Parts: sequence; C-alpha cells; structure tokens
Amino acid sequence: MDLQALVDAASTRDWDTDPEGTVSIAVVGLGNYARNVSIPAIEAGDYAEVGAVVSGDPEKAERVADEHGAVPLSYEGYAEGEAVDAYDAVYVATPNRIHLDQIRTAADHGKHVICEKPLEATTERATAGVDACEDAGVTLMTAYRMQADPVIRALGSFVSRGGIGEPTKAMGEFTFPVLAGSNGPDQWRLDAELAGGGALMDVGVYPLNTTRYLLGADPGAVEAMARASEPFGDRPDDPDSPRFADEHVHVLASFPEGVVGEFTASFSGEADSWLELVGSDGRVRIENAFVPGGDRTVRVTTGDGEVELSGIGADETREEFDYFAHCVLTGTPPEPDGHDGLTDVAIMGAIYEAAESGERVTLTRR
Amino acid sequence: MDLQALVDAASTRDWDTDPEGTVSIAVVGLGNYARNVSIPAIEAGDYAEVGAVVSGDPEKAERVADEHGAVPLSYEGYAEGEAVDAYDAVYVATPNRIHLDQIRTAADHGKHVICEKPLEATTERATAGVDACEDAGVTLMTAYRMQADPVIRALGSFVSRGGIGEPTKAMGEFTFPVLAGSNGPDQWRLDAELAGGGALMDVGVYPLNTTRYLLGADPGAVEAMARASEPFGDRPDDPDSPRFADEHVHVLASFPEGVVGEFTASFSGEADSWLELVGSDGRVRIENAFVPGGDRTVRVTTGDGEVELSGIGADETREEFDYFAHCVLTGTPPEPDGHDGLTDVAIMGAIYEAAESGERVTLTRR
Repeated sequence: MDLQALVDAASTRDWDTDPEGTVSIAVVGLGNYARNVSIPAIEAGDYAEVGAVVSGDPEKAERVADEHGAVPLSYEGYAEGEAVDAYDAVYVATPNRIHLDQIRTAADHGKHVICEKPLEATTERATAGVDACEDAGVTLMTAYRMQADPVIRALGSFVSRGGIGEPTKAMGEFTFPVLAGSNGPDQWRLDAELAGGGALMDVGVYPLNTTRYLLGADPGAVEAMARASEPFGDRPDDPDSPRFADEHVHVLASFPEGVVGEFTASFSGEADSWLELVGSDGRVRIENAFVPGGDRTVRVTTGDGEVELSGIGADETREEFDYFAHCVLTGTPPEPDGHDGLTDVAIMGAIYEAAESGERVTLTRR
Repeated sequence: MDLQALVDAASTRDWDTDPEGTVSIAVVGLGNYARNVSIPAIEAGDYAEVGAVVSGDPEKAERVADEHGAVPLSYEGYAEGEAVDAYDAVYVATPNRIHLDQIRTAADHGKHVICEKPLEATTERATAGVDACEDAGVTLMTAYRMQADPVIRALGSFVSRGGIGEPTKAMGEFTFPVLAGSNGPDQWRLDAELAGGGALMDVGVYPLNTTRYLLGADPGAVEAMARASEPFGDRPDDPDSPRFADEHVHVLASFPEGVVGEFTASFSGEADSWLELVGSDGRVRIENAFVPGGDRTVRVTTGDGEVELSGIGADETREEFDYFAHCVLTGTPPEPDGHDGLTDVAIMGAIYEAAESGERVTLTRR
C-alpha cells in the first residue's frame, strides 16, 4: 500500500455491502455524551435509528423520546421488557459498573448490544457481559469509535502491510481536563467505584485500544505510574471530594516483537490527544486524535515521502453506529467485539496493579 | 513572564557580561562530532578558540591542527603535559569510558574542563571525575548544549515562573538511527563497554537532562523497558555483532509534586526528536528538539494564547562553548556542572537496573 492508496482508503468504508434495512436502537442512559454525540450520530447514519430511550429521569426520557420519535422507558420498564418490539438492539451508555446489568437485560430479550468503553469496571464483570451475549447468541460490540474511523482503518491496513517497515514503538496521550472549569467532580467518571478507575478507564483506553488495533497485537506486560489528588484507591471521608482513582496515569506496555507502547492519560492539564507509531522505515502521527468528531491531522512519513491528511475523521461516531448496524443486518461479527473490550479491561486492571506495586505485571493471553 | 517576554528572551544571552579575553581549548578526541560540530562551534564563538588537538592518529592530529592554527598532540603527549601552555581548558570528546582519564589529566595540569555527555560510563567513574576537578579547583562543565540554547533557557524561566501553571507531566523522544544506512555498528557508541550503555546513554540523556533542567527538579524513582538485538548486557561471541546494550529504551520517571516524565530513545527507526511539557494551564512542545543545530520549532499554548517560534536554536553548540569560556573568564560555576552530569549517569544506572529487574527503582538524593 503506497501513500496514495492510503489517502484513497482514508475516505472509503471498507466494510459496507449496502444491505437492506435499518436497526432500531434503544439508547440506555441519557448522559451528555449519549444525548449530544451518540444520538445525533445514530440519526445521521444510514443503517441505524433510535427506537427507544431509557433514563432514570422520566421527564428527560419523555423529552428526548419526543425529539426522535422514540419510545421513552424507565430502567424498570427496560428491565421488564416494556416496548421490547420497538427496538432490535441496545446501546449501553450508563456508568461503567452497571454496563453488565444492561447487557444482561438486552441478552435476555434477545437484543444485540453495542456497549460504551470500557466494557465494564472489572474483568470479572466484563467477562460476565461477554458470556451473557454468547449464551444468548446476540452480537456484542464494544463502542470503540476509532476502529470505525476510515482513516484509522486505512492506517491499520497501511501498517499491517509494512507501510512503516517493522513497527518499533508507539506513543500516545489523551489529556481531557474534566476536573477543570464547569466540569466539577460531580460526575460518575470521577467516581472510582462507578467508573472502575479514573483517567485510564475513561480516556487512557483510547491510545491503548487504538495502538492494539493499529499493531494488531496485545501487550504481554505493563509497567505504570499513577497519581491522584487523593491517595490511589482511597475513598475520602468528605463526600464532596473527588473520588476518582487516577488523575494522571503513565504506562509502558510491552507488545510482541519487542514493540513498546508508552501512553499517558490525564483528567487535568492542558488538553490534547495524539498517537504516534514509529517503524523501521516510517512514522505515523495522529494529532487531535481522540476528541469526538475532532478535526484530526494525520502525518505519515516514509522513505517514499510524506503525506498530511487534515480535517478528517469528523464522523467516526456515525461510522461506529452504522458499522454496528451493518454487522447486525449482515450477521457479521464486529471487529471491536466483546473480547476486544474485555482485553482492555484486563490490561487496565494489570496497569493499576503495576502502578500500585511498582512492578512489571505480565498478562496471560486470554 | 508573558508570551512576548518569552519570545524576546529566546533570542537573548541571559548570562553574557561581555568579559575581556579568550579561553584556549585543547580538543581531546577528534571523532566526527568533535571535528564537524564542536570545533566549528568553538571557532564561531566570541570567547573560545582551539589551542590544541589530541588524537591517537598523528596524521589526523596534524591535519586538524593545521586547519585551526593549533598544536597537534598525541594522547601520550597530552598526558605528559606537552605544550601545556597552549591551552587553558580541555574539551573531552573521547568515548565515555575514558572521559575520567582525560578529566584527571586536565585537573592535574590545572586546566578547566568541558566534558561531553554522558559524563562517564558509570556512576563511580563520573564521581571520580567530579572529585578530581573539585580537588584541583578547576571548573567542570558537562557539555549539555541544550542548557546553553537561549530558547531552552527562556523556556526554563517561563516554566519556573508559572508560564504553564503547575507542571503535570513531560514526554520526550530522541530516535537517532545510528544503526541504519552508512552508520554501521562500527562505532564506540554501540559498544556497551565503552559507552556505558546504548541508546539511553547516547541520546536518551537529552530528553532526560532537558526535562530536569526545565522542571528544575530530579526524579525520585524510575521504571523502564529496554531491548536490544542481542540480549541485554550480553557481549556476543561474534565480534562483528552489535555490542550495544539498548537499541530501544522506554522510561517513566517520577519527579517531585507528582510530575511524571515519559521518555524513549532508540538507535533504530524513523528519526525524530521532540520534548513536550504539560501544565495545569499550558503546554510547551519542542519539535526537532535535539539534533545539533537543528531547525527547532517551539509551540507554547497557554490561557493567554499560542505562540510558535520557528527556525530557532541553530547555534546552541556555539552558545555552549561560549558559555563555558565565559564561566572560566568570570570565575562563575557553570549551571550544567559535574554534579549535573553525575546525576544523569546515576539516573541512567537506575533506569538500566529497572529495565532488567522489572521493578521501580528509587533514587537516593545525591
């Protein structure tokens, strides 16, 4: 794959077989991200639509349902199978630690599932979610929007075909200052219990998963440092204090063939996100990499020259839902499946263990 | 310090008191770097000149001496004090593991010393070099050219005055493919014995030392991963095989106040070098950071706006020798002194220990 082929691929869906039909989705959890990013993306797509919305706030459910011609449901109604014919699949966008409950309900109703990242708060609960969907014979996709971005997919092909020679290392950052400004600590993302962690679980998973995707490989060992305003893992007595685990996390991850990835994620500090892959004969840098709908810039340098792609990748969340719906319509297993999400939860567990112990933690192949 | 003050400071020598006189330097070791980078920089400066050149190759010594109106010396002649009045100071540019011998000779002759980085191959030998100069009452500077670069100095002031708020983390890379192309393994830099290590000792020291300088602080603990084509630390039986220690090294370094630095250095892979510092209210990124005379770009983002400095810092090696000569002429201790160089050698020893053990290594304050 030469540089021109990369440029061409970066604006092409490599999976779309133009199937008939539409998948109706129940959106479970109506937080900011679901309302402002995911629902508009579902509505903008070719193969998905909003069939139901689930919220603990009846007024909010009613309002959002009205806006999209969908059925409003309470969590109890969802659990009990109310209006179960109004949707074919479930999008889980609740706090991490209750993903499993929503996945189980969906599986019980025979509904396919697209679940936000991280798949769950612990490896045990993520495994239970994967098992529930396998037992019910329904599709489970982890909502890694980067893997649906045509640019990232094209880069993955480019790297796997030797576009940068033998990969030697990866580096990446996602600093997203949720602690700053109007975003107070009053968010479940900052609650170590509900989130399963802090910056690593919420934003660190992006450079981790995208590197795994681009390399087509999983790390075998990790080392890490982490810190928080409160001691790591502690729940302070003051209920108004932040309860997140890691405000900053720094990771070394050893991949096969001696490739090492370095990542950092933060809940405070000047915002930025980027990912860089170095190889024996080239280099790929993605700037503004992980912000939803961000104006990404991708720079690829090889012995053949340099190419810069700008203002691309703005629709990766629409792509994500259309890709999921396409998988459902065509009976194709999604690439970012439940196992993919489970692998990251297990790696992140090992990262927290390494940060606490100060020791390299070896991962067993799952 | 606002952004305009930073721009102004970036083109100003903050140390120059316009003293009388010139310091004549004996260049000990006439490798590529000394001949092509350091000697031209000495000649280009205001306060230094080449007084003698020392080489194991008499023809080379003669030729280089002729070009610069200097006295040619053998290592034996240098050790025995031949033409000792032809120079005031010594620039040590030999392989790392024989720095100490050259420093001791200089100190014995009462000559001031500027010694290439890393200061020596081991902490013990670096300590002996520092002690020798202290006992003789001569100046010892470690040749950290980045610390003499007006841009880096201005950034140091900017950061210490809160220009990016409270620093939160640092990231950096120096990938310099000495193993590629015409640069074969036939170099002392690739000899673990002579160099004291591999990529870390030769190029990794740049992001490490520059971060220490910009933060004004030293790490208290390190974690690392390293790999080489040959097993770490082994000397293969085949004398034609590379004998370097680390081809790639990846480091997490924990600084005071919870700041963590992430660095990587490599002897192979697509070349690049950069350093980034993140704070609660801003970010500094230096591109093409560590290549001698490189066309650096510095981007500073703060709440006040963004400024980009381009095509700057091309003369940092001239600045380095002028700064050293200025210190000698004015009797001022250099900022990158022997202790600064010794600290990095000790940190790098801990990094190798961490890479081998897979455990976080705590550094004791020196």
